[in-house]
Amino acid sequence: MAVLEELAPLLNQKYTLKSAMKLALQLAEQGVGYVEPNPPVGCVLLSKDNALIGYGHHQQYGKAHAEVNAIDSVSDKKLLEQAQMIVTLEPCGHFGKTPPCKQILHQYNFSRLIYAVSDPNPLFDDQGLKDIEARGTVVEQNTFGLETDIKNVLDKYLFLAKSKKSYITLKMATTLDGYLAAKSGESKWLSNEKSRFYTHRLRNGHDAVLVGKNTFLIDNPSLNVRYLESELIRENKVILIDTQLETIPLLEQSNLLKSHSSENIFIVTNKKTADYKTVNYEMNKHGQIDLNVLRQNLFELGIKSVLVEGGAHTLSQFLQQQAFNCIKNFITPYLLGDQLGLSWTSDLSISEFKDKISLKKSHLIKFDDDILYSAFLE
Amino acid sequence: MAVLEELAPLLNQKYTLKSAMKLALQLAEQGVGYVEPNPPVGCVLLSKDNALIGYGHHQQYGKAHAEVNAIDSVSDKKLLEQAQMIVTLEPCGHFGKTPPCKQILHQYNFSRLIYAVSDPNPLFDDQGLKDIEARGTVVEQNTFGLETDIKNVLDKYLFLAKSKKSYITLKMATTLDGYLAAKSGESKWLSNEKSRFYTHRLRNGHDAVLVGKNTFLIDNPSLNVRYLESELIRENKVILIDTQLETIPLLEQSNLLKSHSSENIFIVTNKKTADYKTVNYEMNKHGQIDLNVLRQNLFELGIKSVLVEGGAHTLSQFLQQQAFNCIKNFITPYLLGDQLGLSWTSDLSISEFKDKISLKKSHLIKFDDDILYSAFLE
Repeated sequence: MAVLEELAPLLNQKYTLKSAMKLALQLAEQGVGYVEPNPPVGCVLLSKDNALIGYGHHQQYGKAHAEVNAIDSVSDKKLLEQAQMIVTLEPCGHFGKTPPCKQILHQYNFSRLIYAVSDPNPLFDDQGLKDIEARGTVVEQNTFGLETDIKNVLDKYLFLAKSKKSYITLKMATTLDGYLAAKSGESKWLSNEKSRFYTHRLRNGHDAVLVGKNTFLIDNPSLNVRYLESELIRENKVILIDTQLETIPLLEQSNLLKSHSSENIFIVTNKKTADYKTVNYEMNKHGQIDLNVLRQNLFELGIKSVLVEGGAHTLSQFLQQQAFNCIKNFITPYLLGDQLGLSWTSDLSISEFKDKISLKKSHLIKFDDDILYSAFLE
Repeated sequence: MAVLEELAPLLNQKYTLKSAMKLALQLAEQGVGYVEPNPPVGCVLLSKDNALIGYGHHQQYGKAHAEVNAIDSVSDKKLLEQAQMIVTLEPCGHFGKTPPCKQILHQYNFSRLIYAVSDPNPLFDDQGLKDIEARGTVVEQNTFGLETDIKNVLDKYLFLAKSKKSYITLKMATTLDGYLAAKSGESKWLSNEKSRFYTHRLRNGHDAVLVGKNTFLIDNPSLNVRYLESELIRENKVILIDTQLETIPLLEQSNLLKSHSSENIFIVTNKKTADYKTVNYEMNKHGQIDLNVLRQNLFELGIKSVLVEGGAHTLSQFLQQQAFNCIKNFITPYLLGDQLGLSWTSDLSISEFKDKISLKKSHLIKFDDDILYSAFLE
C-alpha cells in the first residue's frame, strides 16, 4: 500500500537505507526549477546506527551541492565520524562553480556512501570513488527499487547527457475529467496557487516555454517566470509555433513582449523576420510539423529543454508524434463535462483502443486538492 | 510539500502525535471493504516518550476492534503502562459483537487517549470517556489537520449516522485524459491488477453495485465480489436501472444471474415483475429519474450504500443531479484521445465554465502506475 505522506524528517529518527534514499529523493525534488541545468540532488546523513543526523539538497545553480549542505547541517561534526551518506546522484568529481564533492568527502571518515545513480557526465571518472573506498568507506550504488522517484528528478539530466535533441515536457492543467477550458475558449485558472507556483518552477527549470499560435492569440499570455525570488529566476525563452508569421503584427503590443526581450522570442517558421529569432522546421508525411526534427533544431540553438504549455492542438501534436519525454498534468478537483469541455487531447487521433499511448513511471505530488501527475513516454 | 510515501511503521520509531494519527488513518484504510457496515478504524500505541510500541486496525466485521488489535500487538504488556493511544474514532462504549473498547481501556493505565472523530452513534455516550479520564488518562479529540484522510475512511459511516438516503460512490476507471472506452464501445480493462483488487474491496464495502441498462447489455458483467478471501465476502446486491424491463429476457442467461441469486437483483422500474425485486422511481422536471428520490427509496429497502459502476450515461446523470457523495476515479497511465475516447462525463451538460462541479478533499492512493483519486461533493 502506498499513501500520501508529508515530508517531515526528524533528527535522531531511525531510517532504513531505503527510506533514507526516499527522503534524499524528496529533498532532491525541492531543487526542481532552481538548480537547472544542474541535476536536482538530495543527500541524507545517518549515524552508524541509522539515526538521521543531517540532510540537505542542491538549492540553487552555482551554490553548494547537496552533500555540502547535508554536512553543513550537522553542527557537531564529531557525529560525522563513521556516518553514512545516502545521496541521489554520484558525488561530482570536478571543479565547476564549487569544488568537487568527492574531495570534500575525503575530509570525513564515512563508513558508507550509497548513491542511487551513476553520473553519466563524461567529465567524471570513478577514480574519486576508488580514492574514497581506499580510505575504508564502503561505496555502493543502489536504487532500492525507487526508480519512479529517481526518474522524476533525474530524467531530464540523464536524457540530455546522451541525446542531441531537446527534452520535451508537456504541461497542462485540467479538470478531473480532462478538460482545459470550455470549447468556446472560455477559461479561468483551474489550478490553485500552489500548483501555479510549481508551474513557475517548471518554467524556470526548462530553457524555454512553447505555445502554439492559437494560445498566443486567445490568451495573450506572458509566459515568463514569476512568483520565485528574483535571484533564482533564469533567463526565460519563448517558442511560438507560427509558420506563417500571423502573430507578428500583434506581438509588439502583447504581454509576451512586455515580459521578454525580443531576443528571447523564437518563432517556428521557415520565413524570415528581422525582429525575432526563428527556428526552422520540416513537414512530415502527414503534412504536420515534424516535431522530432524540431527538437533537434532547438537543441542546436542551445534550447535543450522545452515546457510545452498548449493549447490543445499543440499538445495533441506532440502526443500524436510521440515527440515528448514527460507529461505533467495538474489535475484539479472540477468536472466540466464533455459537452462544454475542450479536451487536452482533442486533436489526438488514435484509430483503435489497442493503440492507446502508454505512459510509464507515474509520480504524484499533491498540492492541497490539486495533484501533479507526472509520467513518461519511456 | 506532500509526496508519496510507503507505509512502513517501524517499532521503536519516534512519532509526533500528528504522524501517529496519520499512521492510524493509513491503518484504518486497510479495513475498507472488509469491516462494513462498521467504520474502518486504526489505532497506534506510543510509549510515554513517543516511540511506536504497537498498532492495529479493525480487520473484519464481527472481529476485534482496532484498539484490541493494537494492544494485542504489544507482547510485553508492561510497555502499556503510561502509554499513549492514538485512534481514528472514539472507542466504542457498547456491547456489540465484541465487548466495549472503553471497558477494555480500563485495564491499562494509559497516560493519554487521542481520537480524531467523536462517534455519532446515539448508542454511545461520553460516560465511558469520563470514566477513563477519572482514572488519570488525558482524553483529547484532535484531527491534527488530517480532515482529508479522515473523510476518506469515515465519510460513509458519518453520513449514514444522520441521513435517510443511500450513500452514493461513483466509481470509474479511465485513461489519464478521461476516457472509459472507445466511443464504439470497445473496451479492455484499463486498470491494473492492484486497482481491480481494490475495486472488489469497494464492492464489498457497499451494500450494492448499480449499473445502467446499457452497461448490462454491452458488457454482460458479473458485478460480484471476487479476489477477496471467501470468509470476508459480504452478500452483494445489484441494482439495474431498466425502467422498461428490457433486460428481463436476457437476465436468465446473463453473468449477473450466474453470480447472484435473483433475490439480490433489484430493477429500477415502476412496472411489475415476478422474478426480481424492484425499486420504484419518480421522474424529475427534466424528465429524468430523480436520483435523490431513488436514494431514499433504496435506503428504505435497506440498501444504504451504493457503488455506481457506469456506464457514461448513468455516471453523468448522478453528476448532473449532484446525487452522489464520493467519486473514486482509477486514473490509468494511458491516453486515448478525444476522437476515439468515450468520456465518463459524456452526458454531463454544464452550460457555463463557472458552473463546473467542484469536488472537495481529494485523496490519493497509488497502485503502481495507476492512481485512485477520491474526492467528495461536500
